[in-house]
Amino acid sequence: MPHIELPEGYPGISAGFTYRPETAKPMRELAHILLHEPNSLAPAERELIATHVSAGNNTKFCALSHGAAATAHLGGDDTLVKQVKTDFTSAEISPKLKALLNIAGKVRQDGKLVTSADVEAARREGATDLEIHDTVLIAAAFSMFNRYVDGLGTWQPDNSEMYAQMGKHLAEEGYRAPSVKHPVEEAVAS
Amino acid sequence: MPHIELPEGYPGISAGFTYRPETAKPMRELAHILLHEPNSLAPAERELIATHVSAGNNTKFCALSHGAAATAHLGGDDTLVKQVKTDFTSAEISPKLKALLNIAGKVRQDGKLVTSADVEAARREGATDLEIHDTVLIAAAFSMFNRYVDGLGTWQPDNSEMYAQMGKHLAEEGYRAPSVKHPVEEAVAS
Repeated sequence: MPHIELPEGYPGISAGFTYRPETAKPMRELAHILLHEPNSLAPAERELIATHVSAGNNTKFCALSHGAAATAHLGGDDTLVKQVKTDFTSAEISPKLKALLNIAGKVRQDGKLVTSADVEAARREGATDLEIHDTVLIAAAFSMFNRYVDGLGTWQPDNSEMYAQMGKHLAEEGYRAPSVKHPVEEAVAS
Repeated sequence: MPHIELPEGYPGISAGFTYRPETAKPMRELAHILLHEPNSLAPAERELIATHVSAGNNTKFCALSHGAAATAHLGGDDTLVKQVKTDFTSAEISPKLKALLNIAGKVRQDGKLVTSADVEAARREGATDLEIHDTVLIAAAFSMFNRYVDGLGTWQPDNSEMYAQMGKHLAEEGYRAPSVKHPVEEAVAS
Protein backbone atom coordinates (compact mmCIF):
# COMPACT_ATOMS: atom_id res chain seq x y z
CA MET A 1 0.00 0.00 0.00
CA PRO A 2 1.37 3.40 -0.97
CA HIS A 3 1.81 5.80 1.96
CA ILE A 4 -0.29 8.50 0.27
CA GLU A 5 -3.18 8.35 -2.18
CA LEU A 6 -1.34 7.79 -5.42
CA PRO A 7 -3.21 7.22 -8.72
CA GLU A 8 -4.09 3.54 -8.81
CA GLY A 9 -2.51 1.11 -11.24
CA TYR A 10 0.66 3.08 -11.93
CA PRO A 11 3.73 1.06 -10.97
CA GLY A 12 6.79 2.47 -9.22
CA ILE A 13 7.92 5.95 -10.16
CA SER A 14 5.08 6.43 -12.66
CA ALA A 15 2.70 6.77 -9.67
CA GLY A 16 4.75 9.63 -8.19
CA PHE A 17 5.18 11.21 -11.63
CA THR A 18 1.43 11.08 -12.30
CA TYR A 19 0.64 12.45 -8.83
CA ARG A 20 3.02 15.44 -9.11
CA PRO A 21 3.65 16.33 -12.78
CA GLU A 22 5.52 19.54 -11.84
CA THR A 23 8.39 17.64 -10.24
CA ALA A 24 8.12 14.76 -12.74
CA LYS A 25 9.16 17.03 -15.60
CA PRO A 26 12.70 17.92 -14.44
CA MET A 27 13.22 14.40 -13.06
CA ARG A 28 12.34 12.88 -16.46
CA GLU A 29 14.51 15.44 -18.20
CA LEU A 30 17.51 14.59 -16.02
CA ALA A 31 17.08 10.85 -16.70
CA HIS A 32 16.71 11.54 -20.43
CA ILE A 33 19.96 13.51 -20.63
CA LEU A 34 21.91 11.05 -18.49
CA LEU A 35 20.63 7.81 -20.01
CA HIS A 36 19.31 8.53 -23.49
CA GLU A 37 21.02 11.50 -25.13
CA PRO A 38 24.14 10.89 -27.25
CA ASN A 39 27.15 10.18 -25.05
CA SER A 40 30.51 8.44 -25.43
CA LEU A 41 29.15 5.87 -22.96
CA ALA A 42 26.67 3.63 -24.80
CA PRO A 43 23.04 3.73 -23.61
CA ALA A 44 23.40 0.07 -22.55
CA GLU A 45 26.41 0.97 -20.38
CA ARG A 46 24.55 3.83 -18.71
CA GLU A 47 21.49 1.64 -18.11
CA LEU A 48 23.78 -0.99 -16.56
CA ILE A 49 25.11 1.66 -14.15
CA ALA A 50 21.51 2.63 -13.24
CA THR A 51 20.61 -1.04 -12.81
CA HIS A 52 23.65 -1.74 -10.63
CA VAL A 53 22.83 1.18 -8.31
CA SER A 54 19.12 0.28 -8.12
CA ALA A 55 19.91 -3.38 -7.42
CA GLY A 56 22.35 -2.29 -4.69
CA ASN A 57 19.59 -0.18 -3.13
CA ASN A 58 17.20 -3.12 -3.51
CA THR A 59 14.60 -1.02 -5.33
CA LYS A 60 12.85 -3.64 -7.42
CA PHE A 61 10.94 -1.38 -9.77
CA CYS A 62 14.03 0.60 -10.84
CA ALA A 63 16.33 -2.43 -11.01
CA LEU A 64 13.85 -4.35 -13.20
CA SER A 65 12.84 -1.46 -15.48
CA HIS A 66 16.40 -0.22 -16.13
CA GLY A 67 17.62 -3.81 -16.38
CA ALA A 68 14.94 -4.29 -19.05
CA ALA A 69 16.06 -1.09 -20.82
CA ALA A 70 19.67 -2.36 -20.83
CA THR A 71 18.47 -5.72 -22.14
CA ALA A 72 16.54 -3.98 -24.94
CA HIS A 73 19.64 -1.99 -25.90
CA LEU A 74 21.60 -5.27 -25.94
CA GLY A 75 19.23 -6.90 -28.43
CA GLY A 76 17.22 -8.84 -25.87
CA ASP A 77 20.09 -10.66 -24.14
CA ASP A 78 19.92 -10.21 -20.36
CA THR A 79 23.18 -12.00 -19.52
CA LEU A 80 25.10 -8.82 -18.73
CA VAL A 81 22.22 -7.40 -16.69
CA LYS A 82 22.21 -10.49 -14.47
CA GLN A 83 26.00 -10.37 -14.10
CA VAL A 84 26.07 -6.67 -13.27
CA LYS A 85 23.37 -7.14 -10.62
CA THR A 86 25.25 -9.91 -8.84
CA ASP A 87 29.00 -9.51 -9.39
CA PHE A 88 30.07 -6.99 -11.99
CA THR A 89 33.76 -7.75 -11.44
CA SER A 90 33.37 -11.05 -13.28
CA ALA A 91 30.91 -9.74 -15.89
CA GLU A 92 31.76 -9.78 -19.59
CA ILE A 93 32.04 -6.01 -19.79
CA SER A 94 34.93 -3.66 -20.55
CA PRO A 95 37.52 -2.88 -17.86
CA LYS A 96 36.43 0.77 -18.23
CA LEU A 97 32.82 -0.03 -17.37
CA LYS A 98 34.00 -2.13 -14.41
CA ALA A 99 36.00 0.85 -13.11
CA LEU A 100 32.96 3.12 -13.56
CA LEU A 101 30.65 0.63 -11.82
CA ASN A 102 33.09 0.61 -8.90
CA ILE A 103 32.77 4.41 -8.66
CA ALA A 104 28.96 4.24 -9.01
CA GLY A 105 28.72 1.64 -6.23
CA LYS A 106 30.66 3.92 -3.90
CA VAL A 107 28.58 6.99 -4.76
CA ARG A 108 25.47 4.90 -4.04
CA GLN A 109 26.70 4.42 -0.48
CA ASP A 110 28.35 7.81 0.11
CA GLY A 111 30.03 10.12 -2.39
CA LYS A 112 32.92 10.59 0.03
CA LEU A 113 33.96 6.95 -0.45
CA VAL A 114 35.22 7.68 -3.99
CA THR A 115 39.02 7.93 -3.91
CA SER A 116 41.56 9.41 -6.31
CA ALA A 117 42.72 5.83 -6.89
CA ASP A 118 39.21 4.82 -8.03
CA VAL A 119 39.15 7.71 -10.48
CA GLU A 120 42.70 7.04 -11.69
CA ALA A 121 41.78 3.40 -12.30
CA ALA A 122 38.88 4.52 -14.51
CA ARG A 123 41.13 6.98 -16.37
CA ARG A 124 43.73 4.28 -16.97
CA GLU A 125 41.02 2.25 -18.72
CA GLY A 126 40.21 5.22 -20.95
CA ALA A 127 37.39 6.95 -19.05
CA THR A 128 37.11 10.67 -19.80
CA ASP A 129 36.28 13.35 -17.23
CA LEU A 130 32.77 13.67 -18.66
CA GLU A 131 32.22 9.91 -18.40
CA ILE A 132 33.37 9.99 -14.77
CA HIS A 133 31.12 12.99 -14.11
CA ASP A 134 28.12 11.31 -15.66
CA THR A 135 28.78 8.06 -13.80
CA VAL A 136 28.81 9.98 -10.49
CA LEU A 137 25.62 11.78 -11.44
CA ILE A 138 23.80 8.66 -12.68
CA ALA A 139 24.60 6.96 -9.35
CA ALA A 140 23.53 10.08 -7.43
CA ALA A 141 20.33 10.45 -9.46
CA PHE A 142 19.36 6.81 -8.87
CA SER A 143 20.00 7.34 -5.18
CA MET A 144 17.14 9.84 -5.55
CA PHE A 145 14.86 7.84 -7.87
CA ASN A 146 15.22 4.70 -5.71
CA ARG A 147 14.37 6.59 -2.50
CA TYR A 148 11.42 8.31 -4.17
CA VAL A 149 9.97 4.98 -5.33
CA ASP A 150 10.56 3.25 -1.98
CA GLY A 151 9.79 6.21 0.30
CA LEU A 152 6.30 6.64 -1.17
CA GLY A 153 5.63 2.93 -0.75
CA THR A 154 4.75 2.61 -4.46
CA TRP A 155 3.38 -0.55 -6.06
CA GLN A 156 6.34 -2.52 -7.48
CA PRO A 157 4.82 -5.48 -9.28
CA ASP A 158 6.45 -8.73 -10.38
CA ASN A 159 5.41 -8.71 -14.00
CA SER A 160 8.24 -9.55 -16.34
CA GLU A 161 6.19 -8.80 -19.45
CA MET A 162 5.39 -5.30 -18.17
CA TYR A 163 9.06 -4.57 -17.46
CA ALA A 164 10.10 -5.92 -20.87
CA GLN A 165 7.61 -3.61 -22.62
CA MET A 166 8.67 -0.69 -20.45
CA GLY A 167 12.36 -1.39 -21.12
CA LYS A 168 11.74 -1.49 -24.88
CA HIS A 169 9.86 1.81 -24.71
CA LEU A 170 12.59 3.46 -22.60
CA ALA A 171 15.36 2.19 -24.87
CA GLU A 172 13.58 3.51 -27.97
CA GLU A 173 11.94 6.71 -26.76
CA GLY A 174 13.90 7.73 -23.69
CA TYR A 175 12.55 9.39 -20.58
CA ARG A 176 10.84 12.64 -21.58
CA ALA A 177 7.40 11.12 -22.15
CA PRO A 178 5.73 8.68 -19.73
CA SER A 179 6.46 5.01 -20.37
CA VAL A 180 3.31 4.11 -18.40
CA LYS A 181 0.47 6.29 -19.68
CA HIS A 182 -2.51 4.36 -18.33
CA PRO A 183 -3.16 2.28 -15.24
CA VAL A 184 -1.73 -1.20 -15.67
CA GLU A 185 -4.50 -3.81 -15.79
CA GLU A 186 -2.95 -6.07 -13.20
CA ALA A 187 -3.21 -3.35 -10.54
CA VAL A 188 -6.95 -3.67 -10.29
CA ALA A 189 -6.70 -7.38 -9.67
CA SER A 190 -3.80 -7.16 -7.19
CA MET B 1 41.11 18.29 -4.98
CA PRO B 2 38.16 17.55 -7.26
CA HIS B 3 38.32 14.14 -8.97
CA ILE B 4 37.91 15.68 -12.43
CA GLU B 5 38.91 19.05 -13.90
CA LEU B 6 36.11 21.23 -12.62
CA PRO B 7 36.08 25.00 -13.23
CA GLU B 8 38.24 26.53 -10.51
CA GLY B 9 36.83 28.66 -7.71
CA TYR B 10 33.27 27.35 -7.84
CA PRO B 11 32.28 25.84 -4.49
CA GLY B 12 30.27 22.64 -4.07
CA ILE B 13 27.50 21.95 -6.54
CA SER B 14 28.15 25.16 -8.50
CA ALA B 15 31.32 23.49 -9.87
CA GLY B 16 29.35 20.52 -11.22
CA PHE B 17 26.61 22.82 -12.52
CA THR B 18 29.14 25.01 -14.34
CA TYR B 19 30.92 21.95 -15.76
CA ARG B 20 27.75 20.33 -17.13
CA PRO B 21 25.02 22.95 -17.74
CA GLU B 22 22.77 20.43 -19.51
CA THR B 23 22.20 18.40 -16.34
CA ALA B 24 22.35 21.50 -14.12
CA LYS B 25 19.15 22.87 -15.67
CA PRO B 26 16.71 20.12 -14.58
CA MET B 27 18.51 19.76 -11.22
CA ARG B 28 18.08 23.49 -10.53
CA GLU B 29 14.47 23.34 -11.70
CA LEU B 30 13.68 20.46 -9.34
CA ALA B 31 15.22 22.31 -6.38
CA HIS B 32 13.32 25.47 -7.33
CA ILE B 33 9.95 23.70 -7.38
CA LEU B 34 10.59 21.77 -4.17
CA LEU B 35 12.14 24.56 -2.11
CA HIS B 36 11.06 27.88 -3.55
CA GLU B 37 7.70 27.72 -5.31
CA PRO B 38 4.51 28.41 -3.29
CA ASN B 39 3.66 25.46 -1.05
CA SER B 40 1.68 24.89 2.13
CA LEU B 41 5.04 24.11 3.77
CA ALA B 42 6.91 27.38 4.35
CA PRO B 43 10.20 27.83 2.46
CA ALA B 44 12.01 27.85 5.84
CA GLU B 45 10.47 24.46 6.70
CA ARG B 46 11.52 22.98 3.37
CA GLU B 47 15.05 24.38 3.73
CA LEU B 48 15.22 22.85 7.21
CA ILE B 49 14.33 19.45 5.72
CA ALA B 50 17.09 19.90 3.10
CA THR B 51 19.53 20.98 5.81
CA HIS B 52 18.66 18.03 8.06
CA VAL B 53 19.23 15.52 5.24
CA SER B 54 22.49 17.18 4.14
CA ALA B 55 23.79 17.31 7.72
CA GLY B 56 22.88 13.63 8.14
CA ASN B 57 24.86 12.84 5.00
CA ASN B 58 27.71 15.01 6.28
CA THR B 59 27.85 17.06 3.08
CA LYS B 60 29.20 20.36 4.35
CA PHE B 61 28.49 22.52 1.32
CA CYS B 62 24.79 21.56 1.15
CA ALA B 63 24.24 21.64 4.92
CA LEU B 64 25.80 25.11 5.20
CA SER B 65 24.19 26.65 2.12
CA HIS B 66 20.67 25.36 2.83
CA GLY B 67 21.12 26.12 6.53
CA ALA B 68 21.97 29.67 5.45
CA ALA B 69 18.89 29.79 3.19
CA ALA B 70 16.69 28.65 6.11
CA THR B 71 18.34 31.27 8.34
CA ALA B 72 17.65 33.97 5.74
CA HIS B 73 13.97 32.91 5.56
CA LEU B 74 13.86 33.09 9.37
CA GLY B 75 15.05 36.71 9.46
CA GLY B 76 18.68 35.92 10.22
CA ASP B 77 18.18 33.76 13.32
CA ASP B 78 20.04 30.45 13.01
CA THR B 79 18.77 28.88 16.26
CA LEU B 80 16.39 26.46 14.53
CA VAL B 81 19.00 25.51 11.94
CA LYS B 82 21.43 24.51 14.68
CA GLN B 83 18.73 22.57 16.53
CA VAL B 84 17.54 20.73 13.42
CA LYS B 85 21.11 19.73 12.57
CA THR B 86 21.79 18.22 15.98
CA ASP B 87 18.51 17.01 17.54
CA PHE B 88 15.32 18.06 15.80
CA THR B 89 13.13 16.26 18.35
CA SER B 90 13.88 18.98 20.91
CA ALA B 91 13.85 21.88 18.40
CA GLU B 92 11.34 24.70 18.70
CA ILE B 93 9.45 23.65 15.59
CA SER B 94 5.91 22.40 15.03
CA PRO B 95 5.01 18.77 15.78
CA LYS B 96 4.11 18.48 12.09
CA LEU B 97 7.61 19.49 10.98
CA LYS B 98 9.10 17.06 13.49
CA ALA B 99 7.02 14.23 12.02
CA LEU B 100 8.10 15.23 8.50
CA LEU B 101 11.78 15.42 9.54
CA ASN B 102 11.44 11.91 10.93
CA ILE B 103 10.23 10.72 7.51
CA ALA B 104 12.98 12.67 5.71
CA GLY B 105 15.65 11.14 7.95
CA LYS B 106 14.43 7.65 7.07
CA VAL B 107 14.28 8.36 3.33
CA ARG B 108 17.85 9.65 3.58
CA GLN B 109 18.95 6.23 4.79
CA ASP B 110 16.59 4.04 2.75
CA GLY B 111 13.09 4.81 1.51
CA LYS B 112 11.95 1.38 2.66
CA LEU B 113 12.44 2.42 6.30
CA VAL B 114 9.38 4.72 6.15
CA THR B 115 6.46 3.00 7.89
CA SER B 116 2.70 3.55 7.80
CA ALA B 117 3.03 4.62 11.45
CA ASP B 118 5.52 7.37 10.47
CA VAL B 119 3.10 8.65 7.84
CA GLU B 120 0.09 8.39 10.17
CA ALA B 121 1.99 10.38 12.80
CA ALA B 122 2.59 13.16 10.27
CA ARG B 123 -1.07 13.09 9.21
CA ARG B 124 -2.21 13.32 12.83
CA GLU B 125 -0.22 16.55 13.11
CA GLY B 126 -1.98 17.93 10.05
CA ALA B 127 0.39 16.98 7.21
CA THR B 128 -1.32 16.63 3.83
CA ASP B 129 -0.54 14.00 1.22
CA LEU B 130 1.24 16.60 -0.90
CA GLU B 131 3.37 17.70 2.06
CA ILE B 132 4.31 14.08 2.75
CA HIS B 133 5.09 13.56 -0.95
CA ASP B 134 7.26 16.66 -1.10
CA THR B 135 9.08 15.72 2.11
CA VAL B 136 9.94 12.31 0.63
CA LEU B 137 11.09 13.93 -2.60
CA ILE B 138 13.14 16.68 -0.89
CA ALA B 139 14.93 13.98 1.12
CA ALA B 140 15.41 11.86 -2.01
CA ALA B 141 16.64 14.85 -4.05
CA PHE B 142 19.18 15.81 -1.39
CA SER B 143 20.36 12.21 -1.37
CA MET B 144 21.28 13.00 -4.98
CA PHE B 145 22.65 16.53 -4.51
CA ASN B 146 24.80 15.44 -1.54
CA ARG B 147 26.28 12.49 -3.44
CA TYR B 148 26.93 14.65 -6.51
CA VAL B 149 28.82 17.24 -4.43
CA ASP B 150 30.81 14.62 -2.50
CA GLY B 151 31.29 12.11 -5.34
CA LEU B 152 33.00 14.72 -7.55
CA GLY B 153 35.26 15.72 -4.67
CA THR B 154 34.18 19.37 -5.02
CA TRP B 155 35.71 22.23 -3.07
CA GLN B 156 33.59 22.81 0.06
CA PRO B 157 35.06 25.87 1.74
CA ASP B 158 34.65 27.08 5.32
CA ASN B 159 33.57 30.62 4.62
CA SER B 160 30.59 31.68 6.68
CA GLU B 161 30.27 35.00 4.85
CA MET B 162 30.04 33.21 1.49
CA TYR B 163 27.33 30.84 2.76
CA ALA B 164 25.38 33.74 4.31
CA GLN B 165 25.41 35.60 0.98
CA MET B 166 24.46 32.45 -0.89
CA GLY B 167 21.65 31.69 1.55
CA LYS B 168 20.24 35.20 1.16
CA HIS B 169 20.36 34.88 -2.63
CA LEU B 170 18.71 31.44 -2.58
CA ALA B 171 15.99 32.61 -0.17
CA GLU B 172 15.20 35.61 -2.36
CA GLU B 173 15.71 34.33 -5.88
CA GLY B 174 15.37 30.58 -5.64
CA TYR B 175 17.28 27.98 -7.61
CA ARG B 176 16.69 28.60 -11.32
CA ALA B 177 19.61 30.98 -11.77
CA PRO B 178 23.13 30.30 -10.43
CA SER B 179 23.80 31.63 -6.92
CA VAL B 180 27.54 31.50 -7.66
CA LYS B 181 28.12 33.16 -11.04
CA HIS B 182 31.85 33.81 -10.84
CA PRO B 183 34.79 32.02 -9.24
CA VAL B 184 34.96 32.82 -5.53
CA GLU B 185 38.10 34.85 -4.71
CA GLU B 186 39.19 32.64 -1.84
CA ALA B 187 39.60 29.67 -4.19
CA VAL B 188 42.71 31.11 -5.79
CA ALA B 189 44.36 31.53 -2.40
CA SER B 190 43.31 28.15 -0.98
